[in-house]
Amino acid sequence: MSYTKMTSEALRAELASLRERYRDVCAQNLSLDMSRGKPCTEQLGLSDELLFALKSKDDCLTASGFDIRNYGLPDGVSELSALFAELLNVSAENILLGGNSSLNMMYDTVCRAILFGTYGNCLPWKDQGKIKFLCPVPGYDRHFSICKRCGIDLIPVSLTGEGPDMDEVEEKIKDPSVKGIWCVPKYSNPTGETYSDETVRRIAAMHPAAPDFRVFWDLAYIIHDLDDTPDRLLNIFDLIKGTENENMVYAFFSTSKITYPGAGIAAMVSSAENIRHAKQDIAYQTISPDKINQLRHAKFLKNADFVRDLMKQHAAILKPKFDLTVRTFERYLSDLSFVRWTNPHGGYFISLDVMPGTAKRVAQLCKQAGVTLTPAGATFPYGDDPQDQNLRIAPSYPSLAEMEIAVPVICLCVKLAAAEKLSEQ
Amino acid sequence: MSYTKMTSEALRAELASLRERYRDVCAQNLSLDMSRGKPCTEQLGLSDELLFALKSKDDCLTASGFDIRNYGLPDGVSELSALFAELLNVSAENILLGGNSSLNMMYDTVCRAILFGTYGNCLPWKDQGKIKFLCPVPGYDRHFSICKRCGIDLIPVSLTGEGPDMDEVEEKIKDPSVKGIWCVPKYSNPTGETYSDETVRRIAAMHPAAPDFRVFWDLAYIIHDLDDTPDRLLNIFDLIKGTENENMVYAFFSTSKITYPGAGIAAMVSSAENIRHAKQDIAYQTISPDKINQLRHAKFLKNADFVRDLMKQHAAILKPKFDLTVRTFERYLSDLSFVRWTNPHGGYFISLDVMPGTAKRVAQLCKQAGVTLTPAGATFPYGDDPQDQNLRIAPSYPSLAEMEIAVPVICLCVKLAAAEKLSEQ
Repeated sequence: MSYTKMTSEALRAELASLRERYRDVCAQNLSLDMSRGKPCTEQLGLSDELLFALKSKDDCLTASGFDIRNYGLPDGVSELSALFAELLNVSAENILLGGNSSLNMMYDTVCRAILFGTYGNCLPWKDQGKIKFLCPVPGYDRHFSICKRCGIDLIPVSLTGEGPDMDEVEEKIKDPSVKGIWCVPKYSNPTGETYSDETVRRIAAMHPAAPDFRVFWDLAYIIHDLDDTPDRLLNIFDLIKGTENENMVYAFFSTSKITYPGAGIAAMVSSAENIRHAKQDIAYQTISPDKINQLRHAKFLKNADFVRDLMKQHAAILKPKFDLTVRTFERYLSDLSFVRWTNPHGGYFISLDVMPGTAKRVAQLCKQAGVTLTPAGATFPYGDDPQDQNLRIAPSYPSLAEMEIAVPVICLCVKLAAAEKLSEQ
Repeated sequence: MSYTKMTSEALRAELASLRERYRDVCAQNLSLDMSRGKPCTEQLGLSDELLFALKSKDDCLTASGFDIRNYGLPDGVSELSALFAELLNVSAENILLGGNSSLNMMYDTVCRAILFGTYGNCLPWKDQGKIKFLCPVPGYDRHFSICKRCGIDLIPVSLTGEGPDMDEVEEKIKDPSVKGIWCVPKYSNPTGETYSDETVRRIAAMHPAAPDFRVFWDLAYIIHDLDDTPDRLLNIFDLIKGTENENMVYAFFSTSKITYPGAGIAAMVSSAENIRHAKQDIAYQTISPDKINQLRHAKFLKNADFVRDLMKQHAAILKPKFDLTVRTFERYLSDLSFVRWTNPHGGYFISLDVMPGTAKRVAQLCKQAGVTLTPAGATFPYGDDPQDQNLRIAPSYPSLAEMEIAVPVICLCVKLAAAEKLSEQ
C-alpha cells in the first residue's frame, strides 16, 4: 500500500517494522560497493588475451612496418584508428587516438579551449569572462567536476527520457557565455536513456550565440548494449557534415568498458579540422601516446565483428544483474507511487528516483548497512540535487549473489527513509 | 691549417676542394637521421622482456593484492614508486607516477599553474599578467615550446659548463614576473654538462621575488651514464628540505630511455605537499594512469640494481657511437679554431659549436647530403640562436656503420659552410 495513503497509525507500525528489519541488516556487517560503473572481475577475464597480444619484438611492427617500441608516430597506430572509425561510423581522419583515459581527453580539450581557444580563431575562453556549460541532469559527476575545477559555471537542463529538453537548451544557448553542453547520448549516465532522433537532429541544427560553442558528446556506452533490442543513436557527424556546425561536436570514446578499465585506449572524434587543430596543440604536450598499448589493442580486438561479439559477452554477464535489480525494485517498491527507476537497454547504470527529500538519507542508511552507493546528489552540478531524490545504481561490479543481498537492502532503505519522512510531517 | 689564417687564394682552393667532395657525398643519396635523442633498435631489444612481464591474470595483482586490470588505485603501483624513489634518492611520498610521457607531466604542471596556481594559495599565473621563464641555453626545444604555446616569455641564460650562470639567474629572479626556470641538471640537453655542486647549492638557496617561482628539474638522463667516470649531481631535494624553498622544485623522470621510448612510465618528483596538491588536481583529470604498464615495469625492472645494470647495457651500445663522433670531430675539425664540441660522460647528445653565422647553413648542407640534424637554432628559445653557431648532434639512433659515414659528412659541411662564409668576407 502506498505510504502516502496510510493512516498515521499504520505508518507508525510500518516504520517500526522497517526499523527492526534495518537493524537486522546492519547486524550482518555487509560490505558491498555499488558506487561506480566498474566492470566485474569476470568481465576483465574476457580481455586477458590482451596481455599476450604482442608476443615478440616482431609483433611490435604496425601494418606499415613502424617499430612501435620507439618514439614517433604521433598519430598512433592507424589500424586502431581504422577499427574505431568503423565501430563509430566515421572516417579515420575524424579520430584522434589518445592514452588510457577519455576523461583525460575531455579535460585536456576543455583546458585547451580555456588557454588557447577553439579552432576558428576565437579568443581563449579565459579571456572571455564568465563561461557556462549546460549540464543535462541527472548526469555524470566527473563531467561536472572538470567544469567546476576550471571555474566554468554549470547550468542544469532537464532530461526528458529522450535526451535534454531541447526547448530549454535552445533558449539557454542564446546566451553567448554558454560555451558547451555535456551529453552522454546513448545509455546516458545514470538514466540509461538514449537521445531520440529528434533530439539529435535539434542538437545538430542548434544556433548557439557563441561561435565557439562545443557539444561534448561522450560515447562512453555507444556499443554497450545489454539485450537484443538495443537503442539506436543517430550519427550526429552525418548530420553536421558540411553545415555551419561541422566543428561543433567533440565526441569521446574509450575501450575502458570493452577491454581493461583504466588501461584501454581512448579517442576523440570530431571534424577533420578540429582533429588537425587538436593534433597541432597536442604536439606541444607529448611526443606520442603509448603506441604499445594501442597496437596490443589493435591485435587483440582484430575487427569490428570481434568487438561486437566481445560486447555480447559483456552483456551476458551484466544483463542478469540489471534484471535482478529491476525485478527486486518491482517487487519491493512498486507500491510506492513516488519511486521510479529506469530499465535501460544498455550502459552501466539504473537511475532510481526515491521520495523527494530522502535521497541523501537513503544513501546514508545504505552506507550504514554496508552497501555503498554513489553519493546522493553526485548526478547533479555541485552535488546539489534540488529535489534530493536521485540515486545512481551501479549493478556491474558485485556478483549476482551479492546483488541478491544488496538490492533488497537498498529497497529497505528507500522505504525506511520515506516512512521516516512521512512520519515527521 | 685554420681557415682564418689562410690566404684568400688558399681559401678559394680549399672551398673548391670541399665543394667537390660535397658533390660526391650528395651523389651517394644518403638517408640518415641524427635529429632526435632516439634510442636505437639494439637498445629497444634490452627491454623486450617487458612484453611478457605479465604472463597471466594472476600476475596482475600488486604486492598489496589490488587487481590492476580494473579502475582504482589513482596513485598507481606502489612498488614502482618505491623503485623510482630508490633510484632517485627520495621518499615514495615525493613521487607521483604518471603515464607514458614526462613531457606531458611538465606540460600539465605548467598548465595547472596557469589555470589554478601553484600550491600555497598564489593567484593562477593567468591572472598575474605577463609571465616569464628562464631558459639556460643551449637547451631542450620541447621545454621552450611548452612556454611558447602557453604565452610565457622565454629569457635565455648562459650555460657555463657547470650549469646556468647563477649571477645572471640571481639577478633575473628579482623580477616577480619570472616564475620558472627549465633545467636539465645532469647531462644537459644538448651540452651534456652536469650542474656543479655550487650551482645546485645556489639554485637551492635562491630567493626569487615570485613566491610561486618553480624550478622545472628534468632528470631525463639522471642514471644515463656512458662511462666509468660518470658525473655526480647533488640531490637538490636534500638541500631544500625544511627550507623556505621546499616546494620550489618540480623534478621529472621517465623510463623512456631505460625501457621503451614513448611507452615507459613517467613520474613527477617534488615535495610531499606539492605531490598531494598535484594529486588533488589530477583527480579531476583522470581516474588513474595506466596501471598495467606500471606493474609491467615494476616486474621487469625488479630493483635498483637491475636498472643500473640495464643502464650499463645501454651505455655499452651508446659509448662507441659517442666515441666515434668525438674521434671524427677531432680528426677533421681540430684545426678549426672556432669549432668546439662537448665530450659528455652521459646523456644523449653532443653539442657542436660551428663557425658563428654558419649553423643554419651547416644543417642545410647536411640535410641536402642526406644527413638530418636537429634544426639549427632549435636549442634556443624561439629557435633563435643569436650567434647561429650551435648544433645538437644525436649519435644514438644510427648504427656505428652509418655513423662512420654520417659524422665525416657533418665535418665536411662544417668546413664547407665556414669556407663559404670566409670567402664572402
